[in-house]
Amino acid sequence: MTSFSFDKLVIFGVGLIGGSLARALRERAGAASVGRIVGVGRSRASAERARALGVVDEVAALDDDAELRAALAGADLVLLAAPVAQTLPLLQRIAPFLGADTIVTDAGSTKSDVVAAARAALAERAAQFVPGHPIAGRESSGIEAALPDLYVGRNVVLCPLPENRAQDVARIEALWRATGAIVSTMTHEQHDRVFASVSHLPHLLSFALVECILNAPDAALKFSFAAGGFRDFTRIAASSPEMWRDVCLANRHALVDELDGYMTVLARLRAAIVAEDGAALQAVFARSREARTQWQERGGQAVAPAGLAPK
Amino acid sequence: MTSFSFDKLVIFGVGLIGGSLARALRERAGAASVGRIVGVGRSRASAERARALGVVDEVAALDDDAELRAALAGADLVLLAAPVAQTLPLLQRIAPFLGADTIVTDAGSTKSDVVAAARAALAERAAQFVPGHPIAGRESSGIEAALPDLYVGRNVVLCPLPENRAQDVARIEALWRATGAIVSTMTHEQHDRVFASVSHLPHLLSFALVECILNAPDAALKFSFAAGGFRDFTRIAASSPEMWRDVCLANRHALVDELDGYMTVLARLRAAIVAEDGAALQAVFARSREARTQWQERGGQAVAPAGLAPK
Repeated sequence: MTSFSFDKLVIFGVGLIGGSLARALRERAGAASVGRIVGVGRSRASAERARALGVVDEVAALDDDAELRAALAGADLVLLAAPVAQTLPLLQRIAPFLGADTIVTDAGSTKSDVVAAARAALAERAAQFVPGHPIAGRESSGIEAALPDLYVGRNVVLCPLPENRAQDVARIEALWRATGAIVSTMTHEQHDRVFASVSHLPHLLSFALVECILNAPDAALKFSFAAGGFRDFTRIAASSPEMWRDVCLANRHALVDELDGYMTVLARLRAAIVAEDGAALQAVFARSREARTQWQERGGQAVAPAGLAPK
Repeated sequence: MTSFSFDKLVIFGVGLIGGSLARALRERAGAASVGRIVGVGRSRASAERARALGVVDEVAALDDDAELRAALAGADLVLLAAPVAQTLPLLQRIAPFLGADTIVTDAGSTKSDVVAAARAALAERAAQFVPGHPIAGRESSGIEAALPDLYVGRNVVLCPLPENRAQDVARIEALWRATGAIVSTMTHEQHDRVFASVSHLPHLLSFALVECILNAPDAALKFSFAAGGFRDFTRIAASSPEMWRDVCLANRHALVDELDGYMTVLARLRAAIVAEDGAALQAVFARSREARTQWQERGGQAVAPAGLAPK
């Protein structure tokens, strides 16, 4: 395992994701050495809570040139942990103050758009940017929800750029591994296809079911008799509308591809129902149950991907 | 509350649903009086376990004319609690032995096909048949899983026929209410539309997502990174393929209508994504979250339907 130390880590957006990284590095036994941690908020006030809670050592305001310059001076590492739609403006804001030896990474749940933003904002210095995605969340958000063990056993996907320096990628891997996470790498195209399929599409489908019932003239009657299946299926329809709007737009190409594939499957199932082809329905249902059951038995999420074993 | 007593109750299919009714009537304090309970299985052996467990007093084999005749002689009430696809052959098998004063009800999760089966098998004696649907299930099935309090606080929907006698419907209502259930009535068309929407369609959509991933060339990679959203969304894809094949076929007309409505919503969301219309996406997501959250706050399933207050 690569060991590492960072003298100065700067986190943009000190909420659940950024705050949990800071707490993990500080509080987990064996986590590698980190000097100062600076939290940057849209304003000083939004970062002050993180300092009051002892999660970061210093704070700076994004809208203050002097503070931003001081925050970034001598930084080994910058983590962008703000909503993914803010990646481009954030990188544009940071670019003038970014040192040549600072590595930048992010925690956005889409990656192709983030790579495009990095290339647009940083040009040839995009080589300093190592795209990342920790797959961790809680029902609550904000710095108060941050936990030192949020990343234990969770997947973190890195999508290195061809121009990244190998040692920079290795340091980011070591950083996340110090939090207890399982680190894998893939291309940003693979990443976006995978998460469109297993995360973004299910959210869209869940929102769509509730919308569909709401549009019905007998909506109240339907909701009255919704039970366990509806509850599980629509739990993710209680997710943040703003976040999922941004994700759907940021990953729209992969999501539309996955949605089209899904609608093809639905059309096939519809045809089987209309034709009263019980054997075709049962074959699909049995195959799905088998795969879902195996997935559960393998431990659900905390499985290292086949052919992409963590290094 | 209508009080009732049954001298002889005959249950066809003594598994989770039928066994739990028998146990509720016997074991719940205040449950009205029931004399003998007879369990009928496809063979004697399949019903014997229910007698060994003390859930029923007597057993009979469906394939034995003499036993079936004896079981049905003097029966006040017959409950069909076998898989819904067996309703027509069961009713055809029972018809020659059915007394003029015996009320028949069922526990099938679809109702229009059950009503058609009753009219086909019983002709004018369909007036004796009161269609019903207790909305209760457990992950486990079979007589060993039967519980006396399975129906407490659960919805039971009755779909009386125009030719049913009011006092027969009232007795079935009282029977289910004695188990602790909340009883509502609606037409079988309403019933099938409601459950196509909030139960059958979500199951189909969940199976379809797993199928969609299985069809992908990078299926293994996708499953490896599936996390909490996928887990909740696809929990019901671990359901019985045979049961859901039967439900999809039995309720195919209402299910195809709901599926078409759903695909229209998906097409609308797809168009919004392609047009990068964030406002349209956010509006749908926010409306869905609000409705889902309200549903949860009202207590989820155990809510008496607006305008259909339990009597």
